[in-house]
Amino acid sequence: MRINMSHGSGGKASAELMNNIFGKHFSNSILNKMEDAAVLELHGRIACSTDSFVVTPIVYKGGDIGKLSVCGTVNDLLMMGAEPKYITAGFILEEGLKLSLLDNIVSSMARTAAAAGVVIIAGDTKVVEGKGGIYINTAGIGSIPEGREISAGNCDEGDVILLSGTLGDHHACILSARMGIDNNIMSDCAILNPIVNTLFKNGIKVKAMRDVTRGGLGTVLNEIADMSRCGIEIIEEALPARPEVRSFCDILGLDPLYMGNEGKMVAVIAAEDGEKALELMKKTAPGREAALIARVIIGKGVIMKTRLGGSRIVDVLYGEGLPRIC
Amino acid sequence: MRINMSHGSGGKASAELMNNIFGKHFSNSILNKMEDAAVLELHGRIACSTDSFVVTPIVYKGGDIGKLSVCGTVNDLLMMGAEPKYITAGFILEEGLKLSLLDNIVSSMARTAAAAGVVIIAGDTKVVEGKGGIYINTAGIGSIPEGREISAGNCDEGDVILLSGTLGDHHACILSARMGIDNNIMSDCAILNPIVNTLFKNGIKVKAMRDVTRGGLGTVLNEIADMSRCGIEIIEEALPARPEVRSFCDILGLDPLYMGNEGKMVAVIAAEDGEKALELMKKTAPGREAALIARVIIGKGVIMKTRLGGSRIVDVLYGEGLPRIC
Repeated sequence: MRINMSHGSGGKASAELMNNIFGKHFSNSILNKMEDAAVLELHGRIACSTDSFVVTPIVYKGGDIGKLSVCGTVNDLLMMGAEPKYITAGFILEEGLKLSLLDNIVSSMARTAAAAGVVIIAGDTKVVEGKGGIYINTAGIGSIPEGREISAGNCDEGDVILLSGTLGDHHACILSARMGIDNNIMSDCAILNPIVNTLFKNGIKVKAMRDVTRGGLGTVLNEIADMSRCGIEIIEEALPARPEVRSFCDILGLDPLYMGNEGKMVAVIAAEDGEKALELMKKTAPGREAALIARVIIGKGVIMKTRLGGSRIVDVLYGEGLPRIC
Repeated sequence: MRINMSHGSGGKASAELMNNIFGKHFSNSILNKMEDAAVLELHGRIACSTDSFVVTPIVYKGGDIGKLSVCGTVNDLLMMGAEPKYITAGFILEEGLKLSLLDNIVSSMARTAAAAGVVIIAGDTKVVEGKGGIYINTAGIGSIPEGREISAGNCDEGDVILLSGTLGDHHACILSARMGIDNNIMSDCAILNPIVNTLFKNGIKVKAMRDVTRGGLGTVLNEIADMSRCGIEIIEEALPARPEVRSFCDILGLDPLYMGNEGKMVAVIAAEDGEKALELMKKTAPGREAALIARVIIGKGVIMKTRLGGSRIVDVLYGEGLPRIC
């Protein structure tokens, strides 16, 4: 069975799709009310974020568009110090999409949402012409505990910057699949709750956090430097990357500094807490290969101290990176 | 200038698009912070909804996909008795989309959001291959004032059902454009704030509200009947439709009961307030052609008393309706 235009009609076929696939996996007391909008109780400071996902291939080593669509939005909420609570899901399905594949994707979303502690509270499905593809938009709502003031504009000279793990995995995985190269590179697509939770639980002075996605580490660090009106100095030899990803980059002339991940973050930490934060990060599953990779300095922009002892300017990504990486 | 893959990179070109188009029209103190997630204060009961918009043509008589993407989500929040507050916007742009057209669409969203009293707090842009098309997802957050208990499950025998205006306009407009027919049928795409506000301000006992979109009035009334475990009797001769839309439907064999609108709603009102509610609705711009079109009865499902004195069962929409109507 495949998706056809009637599944987007708003009538009988839409309702069947809702019951047989979305309802089956997402069922919860809020969504099941089937009203025009979900009703919730919220109090205090809230973080809110949205992302659309257009990754191709839809399923890849280490994940699929469903898992990614939850990780991406959950991670954005976490980066503001919020505890992710609720998520909405808007599906644009292309005619010809196999219902069994859609079922797998929706099931993957449901599992990832459960692991992240978020409830899927509202959804929508549209159908368009095409070749069996799928786009997913998610919007998320999180609750920011009293006293947390996280912002990319908070950083000061001396702060240390931790990277939660190896660079370039997701990008290299998607590009390998796109090029038909059979290797063992897996996407790092993951929710970052364990890392963020342990930092706050242990009272670490977190200044700023960003997940490393499109644009790569180079772009993210430039955003932080700009917003905090400071400079950042990267230590090249500290940058973690898997050997297989390094080889892949060497062959294709890719720079891991501009490659997207989907389960990695940088955390800017007050200097005195840097070492403790790194140890805590390394004890979590998504952070076990964390490293101290940069420091905040007086100045402007991002520079990198190279292995050879020189230094190079690291600008934001120009050009196109890898289309449809997320 | 047209959209190309670099606009979806997350790097320099994405930032330029953000500044030159989205930032220009959407600028506000929350969005301008440019963090991974927006931060807001919320207290109490919240309504939350999402919709993806894939309408084609992108621009049509009476609106465009930008206006529609705000109206659709704002109206869903209003239907739960919520005051719309915030909206997120996720764009999927096809390569080749003219920047001038995108600018018009984004400007149209900004105007509609301002009219509806919602602030655009978060956004995202992706680029995919294609022929210059655009998809927009919006998610909305509204605040439900104390004491409002609106639900499609609230209706009782004797309640009256008001329809805020003529049926089928949006559907007939989109289909005319798709078929290349030059007529004067305009989409009714509109925000419903004026109607909902006047009902609550005047203390009308509103039981349930639904906007009449995909699936049409027939599907909406069946949803209400199902959720309230009651029957609904439609009075055929009371159903408003523009003469030009009626002619269009007659020629093509379309049934206005299953045609989508984008600026019409039904309100189920306690019998004693029915007349007053209708008068109030008619004094608003989007409700000036409102009519009492049905009553809640004991029973199950939806029936229509026809002009000839007979009665017919009105089921939900089967089949595909009009693809990509919203």
